[in-house]
Amino acid sequence: MSFSATVLTLYPDMFPGPLGVSLAGRAREEGKWDIDAVQIRDFAQDKHRTVDDTPAGGGAGMVLKVDVLARAIDHARGAGPMGRPVIAMTPRGKPLTQSRVRELAAGPGVIVLCGRFEGFDERIFAGRDVEEVSMGDIILSGGEPAAIMMLDACIRLLPGVMGAASSGDDESFENGLLEYPHYTRPNDWEGRLIPEVLRSGDHGKIDAWRKQQARDDTRSRRPDLWERYGGASGQSASGARRKTKDLGQ
Amino acid sequence: MSFSATVLTLYPDMFPGPLGVSLAGRAREEGKWDIDAVQIRDFAQDKHRTVDDTPAGGGAGMVLKVDVLARAIDHARGAGPMGRPVIAMTPRGKPLTQSRVRELAAGPGVIVLCGRFEGFDERIFAGRDVEEVSMGDIILSGGEPAAIMMLDACIRLLPGVMGAASSGDDESFENGLLEYPHYTRPNDWEGRLIPEVLRSGDHGKIDAWRKQQARDDTRSRRPDLWERYGGASGQSASGARRKTKDLGQ
Repeated sequence: MSFSATVLTLYPDMFPGPLGVSLAGRAREEGKWDIDAVQIRDFAQDKHRTVDDTPAGGGAGMVLKVDVLARAIDHARGAGPMGRPVIAMTPRGKPLTQSRVRELAAGPGVIVLCGRFEGFDERIFAGRDVEEVSMGDIILSGGEPAAIMMLDACIRLLPGVMGAASSGDDESFENGLLEYPHYTRPNDWEGRLIPEVLRSGDHGKIDAWRKQQARDDTRSRRPDLWERYGGASGQSASGARRKTKDLGQ
Repeated sequence: MSFSATVLTLYPDMFPGPLGVSLAGRAREEGKWDIDAVQIRDFAQDKHRTVDDTPAGGGAGMVLKVDVLARAIDHARGAGPMGRPVIAMTPRGKPLTQSRVRELAAGPGVIVLCGRFEGFDERIFAGRDVEEVSMGDIILSGGEPAAIMMLDACIRLLPGVMGAASSGDDESFENGLLEYPHYTRPNDWEGRLIPEVLRSGDHGKIDAWRKQQARDDTRSRRPDLWERYGGASGQSASGARRKTKDLGQ
């Protein structure tokens, strides 16, 4: 059974967009996934096809109407395979993780709700069991670019989409660390050399160097990841620093 | 002067993609920004137009060649307005923030480097002063969907692109907090009511309620943001918890 994506959006023309090209595009042609972009406006019931209204309590912008969104979601749930989660792209959501992406890719598909304007009427989330997901601490013109990113991350994990070669556990986040840095020929580029160890042919040493690089880079670039990884506990320098600082408050 | 985006990619067909529609599409027609998607392969110099090679030290996948990338970047720097930063989309990068988006949007534009395969030869970053940016802790099939997201975030901030209405400082991340929740009519939807205070007409109370919601939601949904905001210092429950936990290690 293929992975089924339904996207609820005011701009169905944005899809498949980049997902129609390259890896995802080929996988779609091979029937490994499919996408249905559904116009939210089709679920408005007045003659002006109104999808939004002014915020209760005042303020700028417009809010997507909960009744219209609910009808769109109910339609999508009825039309596709059973058991697909409904995910709204919103900066108020939980940051998407690679492990959640793996879960989604292993399931029947996903219904994605894309907002525009000021956002969704809050009641839709509890009222229709909608998962709120954020794709980074930035503000977009709408949820569509985030939806494309999330779907791309899922699609590459579907069976048979990637070559076995690049499904490696070494990739960033798969083991809680950033991936180690890569190099390839030429050895000397503008005086910058490939690290000696990588040309040693000693696979034990290379493996140890890469593991250490992944740890060092995660610690220096992403202290948040490093802490979750558990790197800050025990004897690490970062752990010691944090402890000292907190004690000093 | 308009915002100038050059995207270096193996899949120029992915652009403008969703950026050709709606807000960004209209802004592009109005000359507020432009995009040039440049094929990295055009900067290969052998007859097979090779852009990648096997990783030094062994391992799965292929690595984008530093000399080819450098020629593509040099071309883009020479062809567009002066002073554009070069940004590579990579999971090893620094997570993009709304304040960095604001800086980018205020500048002459951006040169975006999109990877595929295992990634870039690490030497390109120091060798060409390339900023590494991550769009979330997930793995994509390539940098293109992330580039589209970053550009969308920039474009909506360009002068005249959004109505003044929705440029509010209330939005998530603009003040270090998540945005408060929104509601609109109908007041009663399937028995779920709009919070009473929002219908009170008392703007002082409404403002206070929204501020408190933004704080409460940030603390419960995004403890990481809350801590950076400074919410965890002093008397907050979260701050107290953290301190206790660290002391107990």
